Amino acid sequence: MTPITPGFTGSPLDRCEPARAKVEALEAMAAEAGALLLDLDGYDPLIAGDRLGWSPLPKLAEEERVLLGRIDGIARFARLDPQAPAARRTGALMDLLGALPPDEAETYATARSLLDWHARHRFCANCGTPTAPCHAGWARLCPNCATEHYPRTDPVVIMLAEHDDHVLVGRQPAFPPGRYSALAGFVEVGESIEEAVRRELFEEAGIRAGAVRYLASQPWPFPSQLMMACIATTDDPTITLDQLELEDAKWVSRADVRAALAGEEGAAFLAPPPYAIANTLFRLWLAEG
Amino acid sequence: MTPITPGFTGSPLDRCEPARAKVEALEAMAAEAGALLLDLDGYDPLIAGDRLGWSPLPKLAEEERVLLGRIDGIARFARLDPQAPAARRTGALMDLLGALPPDEAETYATARSLLDWHARHRFCANCGTPTAPCHAGWARLCPNCATEHYPRTDPVVIMLAEHDDHVLVGRQPAFPPGRYSALAGFVEVGESIEEAVRRELFEEAGIRAGAVRYLASQPWPFPSQLMMACIATTDDPTITLDQLELEDAKWVSRADVRAALAGEEGAAFLAPPPYAIANTLFRLWLAEG
Repeated sequence: MTPITPGFTGSPLDRCEPARAKVEALEAMAAEAGALLLDLDGYDPLIAGDRLGWSPLPKLAEEERVLLGRIDGIARFARLDPQAPAARRTGALMDLLGALPPDEAETYATARSLLDWHARHRFCANCGTPTAPCHAGWARLCPNCATEHYPRTDPVVIMLAEHDDHVLVGRQPAFPPGRYSALAGFVEVGESIEEAVRRELFEEAGIRAGAVRYLASQPWPFPSQLMMACIATTDDPTITLDQLELEDAKWVSRADVRAALAGEEGAAFLAPPPYAIANTLFRLWLAEG
Repeated sequence: MTPITPGFTGSPLDRCEPARAKVEALEAMAAEAGALLLDLDGYDPLIAGDRLGWSPLPKLAEEERVLLGRIDGIARFARLDPQAPAARRTGALMDLLGALPPDEAETYATARSLLDWHARHRFCANCGTPTAPCHAGWARLCPNCATEHYPRTDPVVIMLAEHDDHVLVGRQPAFPPGRYSALAGFVEVGESIEEAVRRELFEEAGIRAGAVRYLASQPWPFPSQLMMACIATTDDPTITLDQLELEDAKWVSRADVRAALAGEEGAAFLAPPPYAIANTLFRLWLAEG
């Protein structure tokens, strides 16, 4: 059986983490004849077929490039524009994501999250002074208080409650017509993944969950979440909706989920796109049954 | 069998998330006759027996308190000192953590991570302007660019490589004499949990891991990590040490781990303390065997 793997995973990128803090190693990588720069239009990727586009790396100052790492042994960089605005999700990008295979999407996600983090974090949160990129673009240093700042990755739980061979799906007001998905929320300071799953299910749908099992994860570059997909069993299927978060929530069967994933006409709901881990979560749940 | 649960979990705290943004609901909670304030000496908890200490909530300005939530129906706050320095880990605290049960440790962790985040994030990372606490202490707002900032939680993978019924343990130079533990590292932007596990094992010990299974998680309030414990199988046990990260690494057997957890004299290593999820990870691995 083909393994069920999430979108935004499988990149062959070797991040070359040990090289980031070594100025000479970095300069040597940037000077390699084959070194490449990721082709971007703002924050959107320029795609050739179903692959990311790359161009020969031009001469760039150290603070105007980030090291992504190596693919196929070739050094890969992205351009860091010190004036760039923060990223926004464009409709064109979401169409492209449907065409990019998961490994290419993950390489892109790495670049996008990193560049966007720089655009949103140009000042020291500790003292307010403008900071400068360092460590090949994987950190920023404050020249005033010497605080080092690292890219932010926000852990998010995304989960199906499970009861009597049905799972709970919900609909946010901003979703496209017919779309339902797994519920989700940020993990807060001072809680575990399992506790965050139970808290969010109760807050959003009034569901008291028991055992929680983790199934899979993916990065999500809008701007930089770590999505962790779980299933939580419950004894009581009574839904009490938090109408600030959800427009609707309902229990769906395996047949419902199968029809939704197949895009059948008349399916109980419109499934999330394949690159979203909610889609993977539905497929993993079906594979369990 | 008693379930094996990580330290820093099981807090009965109801975080009352929906109340945070409602000024009137918050004022009403703070005005409740039984409302309590967590007893702290700087960032260290004041403990009565093996329980956290609490005192009647004094009159505090909105920006000088954070809402932890409710325990036993009683509203719980912590004092937010706008001038407090960032937290440091004290030896006294680490002794206390050995005495606090996991549920109390988690309630404390929530308060500590939240207060420490405020101390480290008084300025807007987007524009450098001083920010002010809002949402009951669960956010800060920039009066200049209107960016909302939320407490940071950094996902960290902590893992055992597994080969031939042995697991890999490593020793950092700063560890107490004899201590070995699971390897660990931050999840970066643009990678999944499973990919971060494989990357860290390769970077730190030269181990090429295959399948990764997630076992458990815990919050870790120094300053605010989400620790995710995994086991990764490998076909090749050859260790290539990154000596910047690790002083030593070695394969240990189930008998070795059992002796270490039991604190036996002559054990192959000194186990991490019970409140660290590395300890839980060892116990979960033994329970599998």
